[in-house]
Amino acid sequence: MARTTGSDGEKTEATIREAAVNLIARFGYEAMSMRQLATEVGVQAAALYRYFPTKEGLLFTLMREHMEGLTDAWEAARPTSADPVRRLAAYVENHIAFHIERRHATHVSNMELRSLSPERLTQILRMRTAYEKELRAILRDGAEAGVFDIDDTGLTAMALIQMMTGVIVWFRPGERLSITEVTATYLSMTMRLVGAASSTAPRFLSGAQRTL
Amino acid sequence: MARTTGSDGEKTEATIREAAVNLIARFGYEAMSMRQLATEVGVQAAALYRYFPTKEGLLFTLMREHMEGLTDAWEAARPTSADPVRRLAAYVENHIAFHIERRHATHVSNMELRSLSPERLTQILRMRTAYEKELRAILRDGAEAGVFDIDDTGLTAMALIQMMTGVIVWFRPGERLSITEVTATYLSMTMRLVGAASSTAPRFLSGAQRTL
Repeated sequence: MARTTGSDGEKTEATIREAAVNLIARFGYEAMSMRQLATEVGVQAAALYRYFPTKEGLLFTLMREHMEGLTDAWEAARPTSADPVRRLAAYVENHIAFHIERRHATHVSNMELRSLSPERLTQILRMRTAYEKELRAILRDGAEAGVFDIDDTGLTAMALIQMMTGVIVWFRPGERLSITEVTATYLSMTMRLVGAASSTAPRFLSGAQRTL
Repeated sequence: MARTTGSDGEKTEATIREAAVNLIARFGYEAMSMRQLATEVGVQAAALYRYFPTKEGLLFTLMREHMEGLTDAWEAARPTSADPVRRLAAYVENHIAFHIERRHATHVSNMELRSLSPERLTQILRMRTAYEKELRAILRDGAEAGVFDIDDTGLTAMALIQMMTGVIVWFRPGERLSITEVTATYLSMTMRLVGAASSTAPRFLSGAQRTL
């Protein structure tokens, strides 16, 4: 079957992005050289620069695609229901599932913001703010409906996001708990943290086990 | 007043450590050179190597001192009371206060573990485990006494630590909330997350304001 140049090009670009995420996660962005990346991918440095003319442009692409992926995943997972408890549960499930699948990219996105130019940093931070705003809206709706008991919507949103993203630091597939069990426990902690009455916060996932 | 060589040496060593934390937080450990650090401190590279013969030894010292500082702070803050609610509140207050004061060192300690040799990594992870074990013991005692309602002690401890340490990512002194207000809100979220009955979880800090 004949391959088009386009599909080959896309394949190479995807290979470069994946190799870059792994190298940056391992050594840090400042320490990674484009030469090192070219060697890792098995192409000439000149070929690499055709796809990514600058190293910072490459970093920006990685971060933008990470945030676009997260936003798209949430768009797809967002329930049609207006119920704050259901929406919060969907947000938690999507956030944990997305980040567990992309540990290295998450690490790079959180750690290497310092190396973006001010304009590009602003662009990434704007995407993050839009995504976090979705969570704040859910929390605010729940508080206004009297379903949640929250002191400070902004702080609660930050606390939940840090808590959930933190899963990638210690979670390894195949250990004591499955992703389903971890997610069930995080859902239960989230619902308690936002003061959801237990009657309105049933366990959303089957397979949750009490290990205490 | 005459200075001893010792006190000069200690001063220089402290200056090197502080400059190293700032450079590593800014550029990453792999990207920082000992030559760059010497220039930053204003000493010859040879003088730097007298204090820290290897770059990795310097990184290890920074991380070990961070963990020793955290452990010492907790030893000093740990209440004599056996009450799990009081102990948990003290743990949260100490953890947030310690990390807000040391944003760069926390960043370095969390990010650069990948650059330690296996033996030194084991040593740092052992110190972390000991510190986290204290939190797990508080949670377990509270659950056994029926004061807390917890699904999984290990996951709850990790969730709380990630949530609390996450404060350094977004908190800046002098903005909307004071450290006291942030800590009060995190205490309240913590108590709800562990299912502490609200009668047993009064607000521990004065000055907390409901902003919602």
